[in-house]
Amino acid sequence: MKAIFFDKKLNFVRNYPTPVPGANEALVRIRMTGICNTDLEIIKGYMGFRGIIGHEFVGVVEKINGKTQRLIGKRVVGEINCGCGTCDWCVKGLKNHCPERTTLGIVKKDGAFAEYITLPNDNLLEVPENISDEEAVFTEPLAAAFEIMEQIHIKPADKILVMGDGKLGILCSLALNLAHVDVTLTGKHEKKLKIAEGQHVSTVKLKDLKVRKAYDVVVEATGAAEGFGMALQLVKPRGTVVLKSTVAEGRETNLAPVVIDEISVIGSRCGPFKEALRALSGKLIDVKPLITGIYPFDRAEEALRKAAEKDSLKVIIDFRHG
Amino acid sequence: MKAIFFDKKLNFVRNYPTPVPGANEALVRIRMTGICNTDLEIIKGYMGFRGIIGHEFVGVVEKINGKTQRLIGKRVVGEINCGCGTCDWCVKGLKNHCPERTTLGIVKKDGAFAEYITLPNDNLLEVPENISDEEAVFTEPLAAAFEIMEQIHIKPADKILVMGDGKLGILCSLALNLAHVDVTLTGKHEKKLKIAEGQHVSTVKLKDLKVRKAYDVVVEATGAAEGFGMALQLVKPRGTVVLKSTVAEGRETNLAPVVIDEISVIGSRCGPFKEALRALSGKLIDVKPLITGIYPFDRAEEALRKAAEKDSLKVIIDFRHG
Repeated sequence: MKAIFFDKKLNFVRNYPTPVPGANEALVRIRMTGICNTDLEIIKGYMGFRGIIGHEFVGVVEKINGKTQRLIGKRVVGEINCGCGTCDWCVKGLKNHCPERTTLGIVKKDGAFAEYITLPNDNLLEVPENISDEEAVFTEPLAAAFEIMEQIHIKPADKILVMGDGKLGILCSLALNLAHVDVTLTGKHEKKLKIAEGQHVSTVKLKDLKVRKAYDVVVEATGAAEGFGMALQLVKPRGTVVLKSTVAEGRETNLAPVVIDEISVIGSRCGPFKEALRALSGKLIDVKPLITGIYPFDRAEEALRKAAEKDSLKVIIDFRHG
Repeated sequence: MKAIFFDKKLNFVRNYPTPVPGANEALVRIRMTGICNTDLEIIKGYMGFRGIIGHEFVGVVEKINGKTQRLIGKRVVGEINCGCGTCDWCVKGLKNHCPERTTLGIVKKDGAFAEYITLPNDNLLEVPENISDEEAVFTEPLAAAFEIMEQIHIKPADKILVMGDGKLGILCSLALNLAHVDVTLTGKHEKKLKIAEGQHVSTVKLKDLKVRKAYDVVVEATGAAEGFGMALQLVKPRGTVVLKSTVAEGRETNLAPVVIDEISVIGSRCGPFKEALRALSGKLIDVKPLITGIYPFDRAEEALRKAAEKDSLKVIIDFRHG
């Protein structure tokens, strides 16, 4: 099958062996996959991953090993963490934290920049008909945005700042805005801020942001190592900083402000797919303005280059044709 | 009056002007004061404070400006943060976070290494008779230990690790142990660990501690910049790291583990005096083994030197005689 795999360097091939689903796994034929910043980090060596990259996908189930065949022929998205099923975390429903987990295209499991993937049946969710393929690839990153509300209690009077106008920052601002609280998105790119503005999020250019302790919640989604230090200058005493960026490099950080202001710093990663699908199906969030381009597999190399450009947002690879 | 004040260097004087209580303030004659690591940091320049240092005290109220004279002649301890009384924080009862606050011996207010201090009447709490003076000076640091339970929900099955066998680490382990959860104290000093062990806290020498993600809650009270990075190696995914150390220096820290493991990092500072007094009065916690020495004012310089020694725990200055 066609596949893009990383092994010291990126390889674009047409003869990668099609995966074989194990017990309680499904074989999914990929329709579209989105390129995430994590993919770009992996290409630079993050997580030491080798194999097919990619974890944001929509596809169609072709084969199921297991009793329930309900999803055969259905369009699905899939949660990317695969737990052992028996540890304390898995038993509590927290397979995202299973110490033995594999993660699609990130940890010890071939990913979705390919014609086929396998995933545990339990990871798959049917995509409602009124969600297009290009919208459905946003399910995974949008779920990560909703994870914030799984983890912290957003109160009606809270003032919230989302730092970073990249894909994740914009999605976080849109998801939080559904709670009808006071959400402001800040970043460097006027064009990107406009996308959130178009969906009723307040925005402010980073250079115009007043640096004072004014926000109950600051979501750090800049992807830059210096973002955390800045978040500490913007959050109120007893406030919350949500960390969404997995920046590989360290940064000299003075943690005294965390103690003095009794800040809660909450790390936040993968989230609930169901909520993301509900928001997409209900047309509560429009992800289409975030699409920078859709490329066929033949032009995948170009697609990855495009995704790495500063002005780009979501770049999608289309496996549906040819 | 006798006083120890810091202005570029430490000064021990006998002619410092006695403070005059303002509206709704009391004049307190100091009986004993404890030396805290923060005092030692201030002497090195932390917080840029100039004035009389010291904030752990027990004293007797000599004068009250205000209606209620109930505390006149009574032995008291006092909360160290003085709020403006009118801002959002003060109105919510969080004067510890008032942006205009002064803090006894730390921020813009003369402290307790002196014969007299003034404090707002509302900051004072009467000390029950069965608590001795030397025990009462532990009220402030013990309150800081109880603050952990004000901030986070400790569950019956939680495994808790307290890092650091200094005064604050030991007090945190003793306070947490009252909840009858699984508390382990780790540190480098056998003698100090023994104090917690004597009150039924499990202990383990730092060099014998297995570095694995085994704890639901890790309390970082080492006072060392590298403590945080180690805490992240010891806390379970979705667990909580409580930061108690206000380390002035920064440290290169990779925050990716916070995101990947969705850790909550909770800064924790001053706490509830009432709970601390209740624990002391109920003889639930014995602080006396933490006393390294009690020195009269004449030997205060020696006391401060002693407090800075590695093997020392609490050093107290006695203002009661001469």
